[in-house]
Amino acid sequence: MFHYPNGKKASTDSRAPIRSERPTYANRGMNLETLLNETNEYYRIHGKAVIHKKPTPLQIVKVDYPKRSAAKVTEAYFKQASTTDYNGVYRGKYIDFEAKETNNKTSFPLGNFHDHQITHMRDCMKHGGICFVIIRFSRYNTQYVLSADQLLDWWAQRETGRKSIPLSFIEQHAIEVPTRAMPAVDYLAALEAWLD
Amino acid sequence: MFHYPNGKKASTDSRAPIRSERPTYANRGMNLETLLNETNEYYRIHGKAVIHKKPTPLQIVKVDYPKRSAAKVTEAYFKQASTTDYNGVYRGKYIDFEAKETNNKTSFPLGNFHDHQITHMRDCMKHGGICFVIIRFSRYNTQYVLSADQLLDWWAQRETGRKSIPLSFIEQHAIEVPTRAMPAVDYLAALEAWLD
Repeated sequence: MFHYPNGKKASTDSRAPIRSERPTYANRGMNLETLLNETNEYYRIHGKAVIHKKPTPLQIVKVDYPKRSAAKVTEAYFKQASTTDYNGVYRGKYIDFEAKETNNKTSFPLGNFHDHQITHMRDCMKHGGICFVIIRFSRYNTQYVLSADQLLDWWAQRETGRKSIPLSFIEQHAIEVPTRAMPAVDYLAALEAWLD
Repeated sequence: MFHYPNGKKASTDSRAPIRSERPTYANRGMNLETLLNETNEYYRIHGKAVIHKKPTPLQIVKVDYPKRSAAKVTEAYFKQASTTDYNGVYRGKYIDFEAKETNNKTSFPLGNFHDHQITHMRDCMKHGGICFVIIRFSRYNTQYVLSADQLLDWWAQRETGRKSIPLSFIEQHAIEVPTRAMPAVDYLAALEAWLD
């Protein structure tokens, strides 16, 4: 069994509208997961890449099989995922990333990530995978691609009490991906420089 | 909502012991999913590859949040997956496959696969992914790696009434992966020839 971090409610949380200080028509009430699902669908349809969000892992305990209707899960619990949420293939490369957002103004809390996600990204990098995180600052309606390498450096600093990555560092070292119409969050464009 | 194919019950089905005509200590009561989970764990621990089974996709309808205990899903339905079950990274390559087993003696039924899985494999191949299926003949306690290319050829023949792939074809053109102790099903060894 698995308590969601910060006591947040998973199913409602992910659908909650994000208040933006600079709202635009394209992203009213949009959160990062929705923006990325749209983006990945755009990539797939346009033959650019095949990238999917993994389903939420559930421990299924009880299932009813009513006659003439669909099987119904009546008892299940959220499990800790052993991987990041997103992976797929782009230009022959294995792509793997986690996506998180914050309402903070000046820094991104490291508490948004979990040990198993860090371990998973480290493992994937060893095998030649392209690993990164997409971090969204909801208030500014923008997001950045930060390489897993850079995230690991900051993660290691938790031991010295570091709790977040300053926005000033992110602005300087990560690649900004503005929210647009189509695709909503063109994060693959941000990878071109790495892959070439 | 999603009815499981053949009216089989998902949760009990995947745990059902497989009767083998040539039982060995290593695989008594093992089904393909269990064998592959063990194999993937072996690969991960030994730094050979990072490959995971995706969680079963569920449409969550109702969640209870009892005080001081874990969130409990009380209503959910199985959804049709939009991808294959397994993917990951090996030697820098994107790996993607589906795994199925049969009790048949002389052929592998094409009905074990679904349109969306075929489409997904076709898409991933276009982007340079390594795509295949692992098909297990439970009675003989053995499995084969069949390239997605070959599967697509047989899939296309469904239009002419073809319902299965003869075992004789599989023996000749697929790569046999015997069941062993560690790793249980060394399917990556079967890929070496392709990747080199």
